[in-house]
Amino acid sequence: MIQQLIEKIQKTKAPICVGLDPMLSYIPEHVLKKSFAEYGETLEGAADAVWNYNKEIVDHTWDLIPAVKPQIAMYEQFGIEGLKVYERTVRYCQEKGLIVIGDAKRGDIGSTSAAYATAHLGKVKVGSKEYSAFNTEFLTVNPYLGTDGVKPFVDVCKAENKGIFVLVKTSNPSSGELQDKLVDGRPVYELVADKVVEWGADCMDGAYSNVGAVVGATYPEMSAILRKLMPKTYFLVPGYGAQGGTAKDLKACFNEDGLGAIVNSSRGIIAAYRQEKYAKFGAEHFAEASRQAVVDMVADINSVL
Amino acid sequence: MIQQLIEKIQKTKAPICVGLDPMLSYIPEHVLKKSFAEYGETLEGAADAVWNYNKEIVDHTWDLIPAVKPQIAMYEQFGIEGLKVYERTVRYCQEKGLIVIGDAKRGDIGSTSAAYATAHLGKVKVGSKEYSAFNTEFLTVNPYLGTDGVKPFVDVCKAENKGIFVLVKTSNPSSGELQDKLVDGRPVYELVADKVVEWGADCMDGAYSNVGAVVGATYPEMSAILRKLMPKTYFLVPGYGAQGGTAKDLKACFNEDGLGAIVNSSRGIIAAYRQEKYAKFGAEHFAEASRQAVVDMVADINSVL
Repeated sequence: MIQQLIEKIQKTKAPICVGLDPMLSYIPEHVLKKSFAEYGETLEGAADAVWNYNKEIVDHTWDLIPAVKPQIAMYEQFGIEGLKVYERTVRYCQEKGLIVIGDAKRGDIGSTSAAYATAHLGKVKVGSKEYSAFNTEFLTVNPYLGTDGVKPFVDVCKAENKGIFVLVKTSNPSSGELQDKLVDGRPVYELVADKVVEWGADCMDGAYSNVGAVVGATYPEMSAILRKLMPKTYFLVPGYGAQGGTAKDLKACFNEDGLGAIVNSSRGIIAAYRQEKYAKFGAEHFAEASRQAVVDMVADINSVL
Repeated sequence: MIQQLIEKIQKTKAPICVGLDPMLSYIPEHVLKKSFAEYGETLEGAADAVWNYNKEIVDHTWDLIPAVKPQIAMYEQFGIEGLKVYERTVRYCQEKGLIVIGDAKRGDIGSTSAAYATAHLGKVKVGSKEYSAFNTEFLTVNPYLGTDGVKPFVDVCKAENKGIFVLVKTSNPSSGELQDKLVDGRPVYELVADKVVEWGADCMDGAYSNVGAVVGATYPEMSAILRKLMPKTYFLVPGYGAQGGTAKDLKACFNEDGLGAIVNSSRGIIAAYRQEKYAKFGAEHFAEASRQAVVDMVADINSVL
């Protein structure tokens, strides 16, 4: 699967993914109004607004990008109606030829991780039939429970040619509280990096492994060290733009071949119309603002590669 | 909320919760058959079987127990249909007067954790209205992202009188890979324990905090240390029974007052009919086997308190 992602990145010349993390506060008034008129101010109405918002952004950006990364929490907050739109968004993006990275950060003891892996990447057996539930190409995974909590995801990656990105060093301000603690002189995120390399070793797909890592854009010195520790691991890089990471900060996440990382931007793209820089588009043309923001982000990142 | 849980534990004299983690392989043939006859071998059929199985177990155990702990992964694997049954199970247990601990192990950067907290414990604003999506009393939370990833859950606990259990030391075999690593001579799980105390300090509800901890039954020496480090923190204790933890192992999780811990059993209760010990009930009477297993588990645990 990582090979497919790489080919799409090379074809689009865009090592980025768009984070489809739709907060209601990002959605323009006219989109909300239309959905509320049809369904009322209900969970169904909110979910419909999220869907229309997503669809318009995807319709205006799909030809420029290799992948999207919907954050499932933003859908889960609207309950079943929200999760239906998560699924619908995943399917729609796949129809458009996009690779979908489900950002769910799941992780549990073995048998439970196996159920999550089934839910998001694999197939569940029902009697003599098999079904895929959410069926994204990639999923983000939390490593706090150790190998037996991650292994079921790796197994599904092998069986179904899917991929995961394991949290190594996250982009948020307090990520260091636990992740930077020194164990025999080495930070915890380096120990997790060693594990990611181990888990991914027999899960290669071309030059890179289907077991990737989440490495935040906001800690560039650490990215450089992690890049060396995990030469065959693809990085999913959050934290660019709204969270403070710059293109210069990102360079360390890439290998010499210009590959090795895919950079996410959520707010910076999907709510671009609310930025001074893209205000000229106006809320009515929010998706055109998103398209321009994608073009600018790609140019910005390629300028340092 | 923790005070309500304690009162229910005292009333039932049962410091336990039943893990509603229904794998299809646990569900008796006659239950599956009935659902497949109605809905076919579909995700809807699987979800219907899960619902009927859950309902019968709850109907046969609710008067003996204070709480249930549905593991959301087991529902998520059946997609939207499964999650509808998760929600339906939560509502049904609440109608029966049970406290529901949603076992979802969510955790992310701040704004995303806020959405998860809203989804599972809080209320989401849609225009001028407010809705609760999954609305459980408690939720399990993963601490790998540090304070800003946990704080939004704590904030919702305060606003809505809900509770969380933060993963400190999990029950699985490889939990030590990361959690036992020594930082300045102290294992990572102790550092997380310190954080749990800090996060819970201004979230007290009677003698205990609404911010609890997950502490596995399978590492009793560690439980004893954690009990001392977190005297006002309630422990949610997985790992009893099927995972290998015994009643003797559990003693260390409790305080002198006989409070401080609630022990989960999933397979051991819901699939009791498959054990030699309860075989006499037969698959037809699986829920009666579950009831007997609850009686036996309560007696076993109370024998060491």
